[in-house]
Amino acid sequence: MQGQTVFFQNKPRIIATGTIAGPKEAEGVVGKYADKALNDDMYGEDTYEKAECKMLTYAVRRSIQNARLEEKDIDLLISGDLLNQIISASFTARDFDFPFLGTYSACATLAEAFALAALFVNDGHADRVVAATGSHFSSAERQYRYPLELGNTRPPQSQWTVTGAGSAVIVRGNFCKTPPQKKTKGVDYEGKIAITSATFGRVVDFGVTDVNNMGAAMAPAACDTITRHFKDTGKKPSDYDLILTGDLGALGSRILKHLTKQKGVDIQKNHVDCGEIVYKVIEDEFQGGSGAGCSAVVFNSYIFDKLKKREINSVLLCATGALLSTVSAGQGESIPCICHAVAIENE
Amino acid sequence: MQGQTVFFQNKPRIIATGTIAGPKEAEGVVGKYADKALNDDMYGEDTYEKAECKMLTYAVRRSIQNARLEEKDIDLLISGDLLNQIISASFTARDFDFPFLGTYSACATLAEAFALAALFVNDGHADRVVAATGSHFSSAERQYRYPLELGNTRPPQSQWTVTGAGSAVIVRGNFCKTPPQKKTKGVDYEGKIAITSATFGRVVDFGVTDVNNMGAAMAPAACDTITRHFKDTGKKPSDYDLILTGDLGALGSRILKHLTKQKGVDIQKNHVDCGEIVYKVIEDEFQGGSGAGCSAVVFNSYIFDKLKKREINSVLLCATGALLSTVSAGQGESIPCICHAVAIENE
Repeated sequence: MQGQTVFFQNKPRIIATGTIAGPKEAEGVVGKYADKALNDDMYGEDTYEKAECKMLTYAVRRSIQNARLEEKDIDLLISGDLLNQIISASFTARDFDFPFLGTYSACATLAEAFALAALFVNDGHADRVVAATGSHFSSAERQYRYPLELGNTRPPQSQWTVTGAGSAVIVRGNFCKTPPQKKTKGVDYEGKIAITSATFGRVVDFGVTDVNNMGAAMAPAACDTITRHFKDTGKKPSDYDLILTGDLGALGSRILKHLTKQKGVDIQKNHVDCGEIVYKVIEDEFQGGSGAGCSAVVFNSYIFDKLKKREINSVLLCATGALLSTVSAGQGESIPCICHAVAIENE
Repeated sequence: MQGQTVFFQNKPRIIATGTIAGPKEAEGVVGKYADKALNDDMYGEDTYEKAECKMLTYAVRRSIQNARLEEKDIDLLISGDLLNQIISASFTARDFDFPFLGTYSACATLAEAFALAALFVNDGHADRVVAATGSHFSSAERQYRYPLELGNTRPPQSQWTVTGAGSAVIVRGNFCKTPPQKKTKGVDYEGKIAITSATFGRVVDFGVTDVNNMGAAMAPAACDTITRHFKDTGKKPSDYDLILTGDLGALGSRILKHLTKQKGVDIQKNHVDCGEIVYKVIEDEFQGGSGAGCSAVVFNSYIFDKLKKREINSVLLCATGALLSTVSAGQGESIPCICHAVAIENE
């Protein structure tokens, strides 16, 4: 570890992804790229929680299919989600025969899962690992905030939890040279989208107590990890085509740009936030999208497509998470936040 | 990965632990070995959740002190707990300056954290990692079951969530040769308590729906991982002085012995369950102790002491977790369970 950063010399590769988007999400930028778009956010289930789990299961299975692999080829699933006791991930894992590692860093879970998956395959401990996460507006809303039936008014600083899930298959670099099956059509085995480093975040708490203002709470954590990443790696913002935060939203992104500039790191030119771009008419959702599914869907569909087509060649994915619970908020605690960053580059 | 098992060639070492036990727990076997025993389970705080967090923070800090290290020497904290959104771990991490990886596999979190810590140090990505978890009877009871004020009758198959926390400092094998400070008195730098392998569990659901009968729900997961461990490693039960499950309790342990025997693996002679031994008069707590804190306190105090004194030389620590939530149980789901195993051996 250089500071807080781990370098992956053997360049674990993301060979395929699987994504599913809710009805509102499918109207936006990911609609064209997601593997499946739902017309009904219940997804044929009788509760929102079961629908969320079914979406995550779909994404995992689809990513394995898209990689032209079979379930028996997978060594490990690394996953987590926003529901209490990460039940979406656990119940998803129940449907598969491979081992499961539960992770939690709220909406930063995608980056944590990517980093851990890269660690397993980089050092030869696993050949193929699936990293996945997701969220659902309605299950998150009723768990973290108010019953949906209340029709509560949303404050202007609030964001809209993304209904969607995303999954990626991460394999050893040298594994790509010998695909296990001949039918590799459609899978970018020759492509070299690699995870080159990961910066693990510290918990940062700037004393924000407004549970509707996640962007302001999380921006300092994003700033901490991003500036740390550049310090540890010796890189500069312009070395990345995209510095992609997970779900800061419009307000949080503005705060992040301000904070990083104060620290002498100017990300203005190439910073994009998944929450800011996920919805078609962002004003409807005030500050934009949020949730573990936000970066999961946007990165694994839209951004991954751009990497495959080499429209962009390097992304610093910085997923941010607010580590509160209704209990901690109710007991007067402020909101501790975290940001994990993974560098994803075309070789 | 051999099957589900990762081998750690560089033998990451547990050089020190830190533990804290609640009043009831301190009356039992861990009382003599824990670094701190509480007279008051509120620990000077005004809520049980804050007390739980304070206990975990104590354990982490104490383990670092016991290792004769300073906080700046630590590369990473890997932790999780039973509370919604693992707030004890997240708020603990807020108090420290090193990065944080949130994990969740219910009461199997200790083994997951140990395995991941070993992975980081084995491959040279980190020098010193802290792995910790804990639980609190009162916060768990009111989150998972009923308000304490209700004075609900406990069914005979139930267990008692352990109030306690445990933390371990895991370092690179070759790091032990060059302690960073001269004042290494008390720390077993020459000792060689190493994590030699980890078997990551699959999610196993035998259809148990009784949320008071965790032992029965978790035993099949323990059986799955334990038999898998012996298959992957080519070892047999007698190769370990102790096969230590986390919190199956008396009933769950009996079921496990039965299930493993059916699979041709007889663990009868050297199986011990932390939940079964943690309380002085087990009958008071029906099937014994449970919770993430159960294995965390028992292993990191009592068992670690036996390893240091070489009264035992090899332990297969199999922490088990029930991956339910009140929502999944309320929606009629059965209880998916998991068990992760780590082999800890004196060289």
